[in-house]
Amino acid sequence: MAVDEIKQVIIVRTDLDMGKGKLAAQCAHASLMSYFEAERSDKGMAKAWLDSGEKKIVLKVSSEEALLKLFAAFQFKKIPCALVTDAGLTELPPGTKTALGIGPWLAKEIDLLTISLPLL
Amino acid sequence: MAVDEIKQVIIVRTDLDMGKGKLAAQCAHASLMSYFEAERSDKGMAKAWLDSGEKKIVLKVSSEEALLKLFAAFQFKKIPCALVTDAGLTELPPGTKTALGIGPWLAKEIDLLTISLPLL
Repeated sequence: MAVDEIKQVIIVRTDLDMGKGKLAAQCAHASLMSYFEAERSDKGMAKAWLDSGEKKIVLKVSSEEALLKLFAAFQFKKIPCALVTDAGLTELPPGTKTALGIGPWLAKEIDLLTISLPLL
Repeated sequence: MAVDEIKQVIIVRTDLDMGKGKLAAQCAHASLMSYFEAERSDKGMAKAWLDSGEKKIVLKVSSEEALLKLFAAFQFKKIPCALVTDAGLTELPPGTKTALGIGPWLAKEIDLLTISLPLL
């Protein structure tokens, strides 16, 4: 890993029994919303990420509690991130938190908080 | 469906045996790249979509040929779209076309070309 590698991480809940399409859509929401946060926060980093191939990694957690703790931790660290709340029109109750997008941001700073999470 | 409903459609190949995380990341790529195309093409429509909850649907095809035909058809119709080419660093050979993002754009115009495709 390059010292200044930039990546986006998407963390998705696997305890909701979402179908594959639903899950992929939630990850896409998280990616786009978090991208906008990152662009507002550091336009140069967002652009560098786009120009370098948009590295994305998808990780999993198995509870809403775990997702919310991570969200709070990234907010505390002032790392741009976005929590996806499902509108509840199809598979899930309205307001269900499904996924968390983080960055694009410095990989080494993200990794400090996600290192123990498994890949989806 | 409202007459002027706006949505984004993501079409992903299921013949590549991608893991769930890989598949979700490809869909996120498609979503973000296609969003940028849509923003360049019609900023008002892109904004209306963000403001209305970012409806996203994920559909599937089972071959590269099917994906490329759809890409050509959406380009011919001048509907903003983006084809995802995998860098080939992990599961796939470099250059593999994995997914297609379409819009956000008018749902009724997208549906004309995707109506026969199954949900992922």
